[in-house]
Formats: sequence, structure tokens, C-alpha cells
Amino acid sequence: MAENVILVGKKPVMNYVLATITQLNEGAKEVVVKARGKAISRAVDVVEIVRNRFVPGLKLKGIEIDTEEIESQDGKKLNVSTIEIRVSK
Amino acid sequence: MAENVILVGKKPVMNYVLATITQLNEGAKEVVVKARGKAISRAVDVVEIVRNRFVPGLKLKGIEIDTEEIESQDGKKLNVSTIEIRVSK
Repeated sequence: MAENVILVGKKPVMNYVLATITQLNEGAKEVVVKARGKAISRAVDVVEIVRNRFVPGLKLKGIEIDTEEIESQDGKKLNVSTIEIRVSK
Repeated sequence: MAENVILVGKKPVMNYVLATITQLNEGAKEVVVKARGKAISRAVDVVEIVRNRFVPGLKLKGIEIDTEEIESQDGKKLNVSTIEIRVSK
């Protein structure tokens, strides 16, 4: 995974908020906040919290949605939605 | 609410998929799939299922995220993330 990607999963939302702010403050030109499935809502929360509370001038460079095929534990193929939100200072 | 808005909530995802397809087939130039909070993931699922299974040429016209302030049952103000996904045939 590239350095400037934050993959949002099941941890508390503030973990990802802090990771995003850290990368922006360390000079990342652009940070990509990514998530799959039910974590998509949390990825949106991450970007909104960064923008509203910590980096007021945050620029939304683009939002993309897509579908990935994953294999479940019993070998079935499942489609899962994904989101990528690109932000910069 | 305007006719061409689908507000995604807690119903099964296929309900919203069918509503979106119906509006597109009835001549809506653009349909806006909206959701708040945890339903955001489901809104992305709706658009992805419409695009992958039912309307292959579906155009994604834009995706916007924002924050709304809502009042909880005990009178507290809460921030909730929102998404709007604009699609057309």
C-alpha cells in the first residue's frame, strides 16, 4: 500500500482521522481515504471530521466508487462496494 | 423531496435499486441517491448494483459528501455524515 493511503476498517474513527492528519502534516500532497463494504460510512466520517474539526481548508480532490470481487471464507465470490476519497491541504 | 431523489435508509438494498431504475426508466434526467450515517454504505451499494447489473452505461455525474447536524431523542446535537450520488443514463 502506498504511504499516502489510509485504509479505513473497524477501528475507532479517530484512529483514521489522526492517521490522515499526520500524513497531511508530514507533507503528503494527497491522501487517499479508502474503504470497502460497511466501512464506507466510516471513511466518509473520517474525511468530514478532518475537514470540519482539524483542517478547515481541506480540499476534496475526488470521490470514486467501484465494486471489488472478494472470496468469502467458504469460497464463494462476493461483490463488495468500495470508495476512494482523495483529499489535500 | 424532489421526485428524482432516492433517500436510502434501512430497507433492503434491492428496494432502492428498483426505485432508482424505475425513475431512470420513467425519464428522469438525473437521479440523486442520498443517505446519511450508516446508510451511506448502502447508497454506494445501490448505485454499484444498478450500474453493474441493470444499467451498464450508467453515468456517475458526481459524488458529494457533507455533514448535517441532527438532534437526537434526548435533545443533543449530533453531526452525521451525508452522501449524494448523482447518476444518469
